[in-house]
Amino acid sequence: MRAVDFIEQKRRGDVHTKDALTAFITAYVADNVPDYQVAAWLMAVFFQGLNPEETAALTLSMAHSGDVLDLSALPYTVDKHSTGGVGDKTSLVLAPLLAACGATVAKMSGRGLGHTGGTVDKLESIPGFRAELSESAFYTQAREVGVVITGQSKLAPADGLLYALRDATGTVGSLPLIAASIMSKKLAGGAQNIVLDVKVGDGAFMKTPAEARALARTMRDIGTHAGRNVRTLLTGMSEPLGLAVGNALEVTEAVQTLRGDGPDDLLDLSFSLAQEGLTAAGLSADRETLEAAVSSGRAYEKLEAWVAAQGGDAGALGRLEAAPEQHLLRAGQSGFVAELGALVIGQAVKVLGGGRAQKGDTIDPGVGVVLHAKVGAEVRRGEPLLTLYHRGKGLESALELLAGAVTISETRVEAPPLFLDTSA
Amino acid sequence: MRAVDFIEQKRRGDVHTKDALTAFITAYVADNVPDYQVAAWLMAVFFQGLNPEETAALTLSMAHSGDVLDLSALPYTVDKHSTGGVGDKTSLVLAPLLAACGATVAKMSGRGLGHTGGTVDKLESIPGFRAELSESAFYTQAREVGVVITGQSKLAPADGLLYALRDATGTVGSLPLIAASIMSKKLAGGAQNIVLDVKVGDGAFMKTPAEARALARTMRDIGTHAGRNVRTLLTGMSEPLGLAVGNALEVTEAVQTLRGDGPDDLLDLSFSLAQEGLTAAGLSADRETLEAAVSSGRAYEKLEAWVAAQGGDAGALGRLEAAPEQHLLRAGQSGFVAELGALVIGQAVKVLGGGRAQKGDTIDPGVGVVLHAKVGAEVRRGEPLLTLYHRGKGLESALELLAGAVTISETRVEAPPLFLDTSA
Repeated sequence: MRAVDFIEQKRRGDVHTKDALTAFITAYVADNVPDYQVAAWLMAVFFQGLNPEETAALTLSMAHSGDVLDLSALPYTVDKHSTGGVGDKTSLVLAPLLAACGATVAKMSGRGLGHTGGTVDKLESIPGFRAELSESAFYTQAREVGVVITGQSKLAPADGLLYALRDATGTVGSLPLIAASIMSKKLAGGAQNIVLDVKVGDGAFMKTPAEARALARTMRDIGTHAGRNVRTLLTGMSEPLGLAVGNALEVTEAVQTLRGDGPDDLLDLSFSLAQEGLTAAGLSADRETLEAAVSSGRAYEKLEAWVAAQGGDAGALGRLEAAPEQHLLRAGQSGFVAELGALVIGQAVKVLGGGRAQKGDTIDPGVGVVLHAKVGAEVRRGEPLLTLYHRGKGLESALELLAGAVTISETRVEAPPLFLDTSA
Repeated sequence: MRAVDFIEQKRRGDVHTKDALTAFITAYVADNVPDYQVAAWLMAVFFQGLNPEETAALTLSMAHSGDVLDLSALPYTVDKHSTGGVGDKTSLVLAPLLAACGATVAKMSGRGLGHTGGTVDKLESIPGFRAELSESAFYTQAREVGVVITGQSKLAPADGLLYALRDATGTVGSLPLIAASIMSKKLAGGAQNIVLDVKVGDGAFMKTPAEARALARTMRDIGTHAGRNVRTLLTGMSEPLGLAVGNALEVTEAVQTLRGDGPDDLLDLSFSLAQEGLTAAGLSADRETLEAAVSSGRAYEKLEAWVAAQGGDAGALGRLEAAPEQHLLRAGQSGFVAELGALVIGQAVKVLGGGRAQKGDTIDPGVGVVLHAKVGAEVRRGEPLLTLYHRGKGLESALELLAGAVTISETRVEAPPLFLDTSA
């Protein structure tokens, strides 16, 4: 089929065959279809959508556009993906926890762009940590430690090409395209069991529960088509997760959580995601098992073994250096914290140097924001609300951003729900 | 405004400002916006449309993307455009007729692509005719003869760029984009008075009267915004116009018509378009004036003077050579001609060598098809229906195409209406 006929098919609202879709994506990756035809098709998809079969076919052809990891020789492989949130260091808690319960977490993970940091960025704040591993080192570590995460990814190159084009053509917000983008990398990542944390709220890409539910359903459908076990959670992202935002600060909070001393929401979310992952893998997933993994120190030992295996200084884990200068924001009135804008807090950390404006920017692992109260907490006038860790750079812009980030109400406010819906 | 924000504006269904639209088109022509962003925008326009102000702003920015002819020193300038039909040689009749009635026809006209021939292609079947003229020769001839048509056009280069992109991205069929494409060239062409012949039917781009009416209205609106007098006719194109299809054959038929001996539909259409053009220009436009221009020989003399001024052999006009081989198709049964597929007849002439598969192809002016009966005519079994003029090349394919082109009905059939609607 000529590319123009393929575009017109979608423009009319007709359904693509699996073969036609695969041929189109394959030709695009081979540079045999120009960007402008793919751009027109993406916009047609924005208006006409893709049905579940088309979405699955698109995702599979994207997943097979480059390397595909073969994890079939490893036991109980579990992968987890979050659609992105501020202060989301869950992977750092979840991966050792899963490994301590018998699962294998062997994944390639991206670096952060925009207002959310990537897992690899957080790991690289540990002195000595190497995110680049050879293929054989990757598989050896997966087998021996049960946890390995690398930063260099040649998985699903079609997704990189399509994402750049969507970003430039106003077609990022199409649900089947979002689902295909996420799932193509997960399918290429090779894990049999996939847990998806779909964030909802101000600090997340999905602003409403309805959108998030639809995305979750679409991603589960893709997994079913591809023969994987996919489980999803819908979780709130109107305030940051935990108390720390910023790479080193988040590693420290993850360490505290694995030592049984972390914030409740981070622990709850990690446990729930672990339960979904272990259940999908057919492993024991009751709460007691997870609590024992933490209280016995086994989960924390997995973190140490993992970090050490990738060259990191495991002894430094509890005492990573934050940026030396601190700026405290205090409550201007007494009342209840009503709003903690996750998005602006993420942006503030970015302007302090903790995030990337564009690909390739270096980041400062020590800067960040620590919350002293979460939504629903009672505060008195003059009590601390936030501490900024900084090195002078970007402080003024960060303070401007944060000016309206915290709202205090005179009447009592409920803490926002962490779990919006549990779909299995 | 960033290009991606401009695209998203239309994707959401918002209205572009005149300034934003002009800036986008200007940047595109200057190669400062990539094809893929324009392609995405074109598809968004396909779904969300453009309002009359946006369409006018788009058209004007396209019209001003290159040279703009200044015809203001010439009296009563009239331009005519047809949306394209099979056997449409009207310009060859109309231009001398208008000039004989006091108007000036000075235009740049394109070459044909696809199943319809361009006016310049037809003129070039006259021995010696030169379609390339210097600027000064163009204006001198316009003043002295009242008719000049050249083939080289640097008018509205934005239209050429956008058309190629629409053609490759399935966005040709958007009404405001069609209207802007036609009118940008007419506005750049400089005539104060513009007559548009919007064809409807099987052989035309607009398949239904409703589509054609909407296109006509959109183009009149653009003209009003630009301070031009635009008048439109909706005319049928379910069968070819006149009897001849093919470049030299069509010139011969135009000559016969200007000598008072042409087919009725061609004469009627030429007179009606002339009346619209003369009325728009404020000249006398009654039927008697037009009939006198033909019967007195003045219209035909204008054709001779025009052809001679551009180097053509005016003496050859009545006897242009058709291709030497003929193939006759006869009626397989007695009855009434019910259908003469304009589209397939045009395609048959193209495969005989009379049209271009792609830009730059040379064409054979002598090949073509002559009809012996039009829709509604009574024919007896064995009577001639069509004669193909050919040189062997493409004959088999042409005959295959024509196999289902003519339908004969046992019951009486009405001739299809030539005029569907007259909107002024």
